[in-house]
Amino acid sequence: MRFKVECDLGYRVQADGVPFVFNIEAQRRPGQTVVEESLSVSQDVARDRFTVPESGDRIVRLRAEAGALAVRYEALVDLDAGRLDPASVREMPVGRLPLDVLAHLFPSRYVESDLLQSFAFEEFGRLPHGYARVSAICNWVHGHLDTTAGASDEHTSARDTLVSRQGVCRDFAHLAVGLCRALGIPARFVSAYAWKLSPPDFHAVVEAWLEGPEGGAWFLFDPTRKAAADGLVRMGIGRDAAEVAFCSPFGAVECGAPSVRIEAADPAADAELTTDAVTLAAA
Amino acid sequence: MRFKVECDLGYRVQADGVPFVFNIEAQRRPGQTVVEESLSVSQDVARDRFTVPESGDRIVRLRAEAGALAVRYEALVDLDAGRLDPASVREMPVGRLPLDVLAHLFPSRYVESDLLQSFAFEEFGRLPHGYARVSAICNWVHGHLDTTAGASDEHTSARDTLVSRQGVCRDFAHLAVGLCRALGIPARFVSAYAWKLSPPDFHAVVEAWLEGPEGGAWFLFDPTRKAAADGLVRMGIGRDAAEVAFCSPFGAVECGAPSVRIEAADPAADAELTTDAVTLAAA
Amino acid sequence: MRFKVECDLGYRVQADGVPFVFNIEAQRRPGQTVVEESLSVSQDVARDRFTVPESGDRIVRLRAEAGALAVRYEALVDLDAGRLDPASVREMPVGRLPLDVLAHLFPSRYVESDLLQSFAFEEFGRLPHGYARVSAICNWVHGHLDTTAGASDEHTSARDTLVSRQGVCRDFAHLAVGLCRALGIPARFVSAYAWKLSPPDFHAVVEAWLEGPEGGAWFLFDPTRKAAADGLVRMGIGRDAAEVAFCSPFGAVECGAPSVRIEAADPAADAELTTDAVTLAAA
Amino acid sequence: MRFKVECDLGYRVQADGVPFVFNIEAQRRPGQTVVEESLSVSQDVARDRFTVPESGDRIVRLRAEAGALAVRYEALVDLDAGRLDPASVREMPVGRLPLDVLAHLFPSRYVESDLLQSFAFEEFGRLPHGYARVSAICNWVHGHLDTTAGASDEHTSARDTLVSRQGVCRDFAHLAVGLCRALGIPARFVSAYAWKLSPPDFHAVVEAWLEGPEGGAWFLFDPTRKAAADGLVRMGIGRDAAEVAFCSPFGAVECGAPSVRIEAADPAADAELTTDAVTLAAA
Repeated sequence: MRFKVECDLGYRVQADGVPFVFNIEAQRRPGQTVVEESLSVSQDVARDRFTVPESGDRIVRLRAEAGALAVRYEALVDLDAGRLDPASVREMPVGRLPLDVLAHLFPSRYVESDLLQSFAFEEFGRLPHGYARVSAICNWVHGHLDTTAGASDEHTSARDTLVSRQGVCRDFAHLAVGLCRALGIPARFVSAYAWKLSPPDFHAVVEAWLEGPEGGAWFLFDPTRKAAADGLVRMGIGRDAAEVAFCSPFGAVECGAPSVRIEAADPAADAELTTDAVTLAAA
Repeated sequence: MRFKVECDLGYRVQADGVPFVFNIEAQRRPGQTVVEESLSVSQDVARDRFTVPESGDRIVRLRAEAGALAVRYEALVDLDAGRLDPASVREMPVGRLPLDVLAHLFPSRYVESDLLQSFAFEEFGRLPHGYARVSAICNWVHGHLDTTAGASDEHTSARDTLVSRQGVCRDFAHLAVGLCRALGIPARFVSAYAWKLSPPDFHAVVEAWLEGPEGGAWFLFDPTRKAAADGLVRMGIGRDAAEVAFCSPFGAVECGAPSVRIEAADPAADAELTTDAVTLAAA
Repeated sequence: MRFKVECDLGYRVQADGVPFVFNIEAQRRPGQTVVEESLSVSQDVARDRFTVPESGDRIVRLRAEAGALAVRYEALVDLDAGRLDPASVREMPVGRLPLDVLAHLFPSRYVESDLLQSFAFEEFGRLPHGYARVSAICNWVHGHLDTTAGASDEHTSARDTLVSRQGVCRDFAHLAVGLCRALGIPARFVSAYAWKLSPPDFHAVVEAWLEGPEGGAWFLFDPTRKAAADGLVRMGIGRDAAEVAFCSPFGAVECGAPSVRIEAADPAADAELTTDAVTLAAA
Repeated sequence: MRFKVECDLGYRVQADGVPFVFNIEAQRRPGQTVVEESLSVSQDVARDRFTVPESGDRIVRLRAEAGALAVRYEALVDLDAGRLDPASVREMPVGRLPLDVLAHLFPSRYVESDLLQSFAFEEFGRLPHGYARVSAICNWVHGHLDTTAGASDEHTSARDTLVSRQGVCRDFAHLAVGLCRALGIPARFVSAYAWKLSPPDFHAVVEAWLEGPEGGAWFLFDPTRKAAADGLVRMGIGRDAAEVAFCSPFGAVECGAPSVRIEAADPAADAELTTDAVTLAAA
């Protein structure tokens, strides 16, 4: 299924030479094909590019001059999500995890999974293992947190959210990632363009490493239950939000609100909202 | 019902003149009568005494000399707990609370009730108000925390415990107090000699301000579900553990483990273990 | 010296019967005499009054009806601050503290003095004890914190502020109180009308228990270094901000910004700004 | 200079099939050559091996059987540390950092550099940039923290340590890493065999990305000032301690204390203890 994604970012830069790091381009990975894309920048400055090997994040850095800076990204992206019978998707024991996946069991800045173990085992320890258990975690997060703008900020972590019971998509994702890791299920934070998300914005979802009939893979979950799993175009993948900010300026800058859009390229498309589909990137 | 309580405390003091503040004597309050008591101290030093007006805590201060210090308290105490039909005990709206009770709605060092509001309303907000709701809070605390020595320390607060789901009686009490306050129910922390507690030790329980047919009163709850509500001899009452330490030395001191005993004066007594009885100090 | 203080508070109440607790009236205490005062409320509702024995806080409670609520307090207050030679003001050892002062050594919600001990001893442990040491604490707080609106909120504590190095008067006061307590100096949080504070607002300062030639007393300090110590009219005194909110509504309410004024009744008065005067309430 | 390193680890495993992940082998990287090595395990179980591309960590996983498990690693390692005139080593502006180094500016589990910015700029912002500034950070950490076993645990973070002012080598390293990151200097956590460390143990130190006359490189710092920079054999490199545990068991296991040794292979070697040498791994 083909999607058109766009975002417009605007800044007022207060000095020459302020470095910006962007992570807004659609990832190129199995199951997600960038058909065409363009990144336009209102200032004529050099760009450095880097694709992070372990995550596929596509980083662009530029040094902006004082004044207005506008950045626009647009792309056509094909998503070819696999789907599996949830009952066929199991957890993979730590002893068999691919060794490059192990790092996604560690706690990180906004995901103190080391502090969540007793809670996670109490609440989810007796559930049948597998896809359904991660889904139960996301249901719990969705059912027990209120979506409250302003109740959290850029310093808020999963521990804070477990207490406050409030947050935005980023907080929902951090807590779900933390509960997975606490149970020994590798999990990571994903920033995405999210089809049908209302109001439109960058979104944060979760990938957990599970094992289908053909082997291990990262499976997608949206603990906010707001986006269509078929329509998530990944930008950033990381341990948590610390690694996938869509924009990191290193200097004095005023930031406008981002404008984000995603629509199905085929107007007839109207997939149902499957918030917890078994979406599988080919291994 | 009459109880004999005793405790023995031992210290090695490493300098002359180290101040000690003790809070180990049974309170004198309606429903709790000290029939006889003695406090013996192995060093011949002066004692200052003070009963805190708002709490009834009986504080003893002394300045110890270098060397061994042994403190022994023993008392005969009559408890005359009132009991009410739980269904007759209501919450008192904030607008009608006695104004000297209001302070027990505020957050305190180990009870960050300001952070617990969303959780408290989500979990307990729809329950029928009254004695049963506080009892439900204590049941929740009892059901969701593990008793784990060493999982908490003297800096651990209700927020920490809500995340870690582990603790000792002090942590159980802090969390229950915090959930009450978050719902607008005044609550305080009580240290006590606890009949039938096994193993014997100082205990921490909770009082919540509720309203029976004859008016408002502090009702007793033990969220650990370990002690007999009929057999709790109060020592310290305060906002939280910061205010009712049984011993605070202000200098270099080695502390031994306290030895604590309580038994029914009448060996025939064998009240049932009612962990959540409607225990009511006469107003 | 005589001052005229005023404040105007405005609310929009969204239901009938919402309880409000105010703590905006000038305390009546030695050295601070209320010559005349009036409290006017735009709604004709009953008021309950209580003066907290241990603090002197003058609490007013009312139950507001839905709609606009305006509260206005004005008073003429005489301040008769004592002054002592700072070199004559000593710390009082814990072993000699009045026993009703001891509670101001305990940690509280926003003042985790238990966590600040190593820092306090490292930074201030070797300084000469006495008035000058508390003054050094306030100088340190003033010198190391930035006044930044929005960097802290109603949940921010001394521990947070020691890390963030940012805050408003409330945060400055909490940290100074905490450092005092960590060193064994009783200290408390004071809300006040503050002469010459710019822009005018309710202010937060600190009292520490010290000992002059004639005995112990609470001495006043302003770690923001913004107000004239001669012109602080105390409203609330408590362990920390949790106890002295100028207004606590218990229900759905929109709050306007308070309007606060204080001026010298004698227009010729123009005491110098002595931010750290030895201000002594008569014992 | 050649070193002989050894460690012996002992466990009692309480079930069959408990996965263990070890990170105890000397890294193979420019300037650190493993001449010979052996890893022996008392149980005859399969080992999985993985070298993490971005860090060089050499991970070994095995699934242990119930009973005793002993692991022994020994190696001969040549260190060929470069040294530069500290005055020639500069900070590299964010706009010129290699893009694969950027991730070491992000906050991580035990290094909340996002919370340390005001403090870092206040304390170190006006110092001359370069090697000397990182050295000043390490001097500050060394000068302001007490080495106190038991004052921190596996959940302790840089924020906690900045308040408590106590910790072990791991805490010293976390705080130094955090202060670097807060200032825009990439920094990471390094576990190592540390020559002359007394008592012998695994050690934690810091690498910061700086720029010498021939380009950028990771420079080594020991904020505990205890080890010889010439004699640090790196095992694990990561964002913080969450990524470089020397042993992570995933099941019920009793752990003995590790036994660690390192000595110069040439007994005549006796390099001076240069705790803050400009140690440079060739780029």
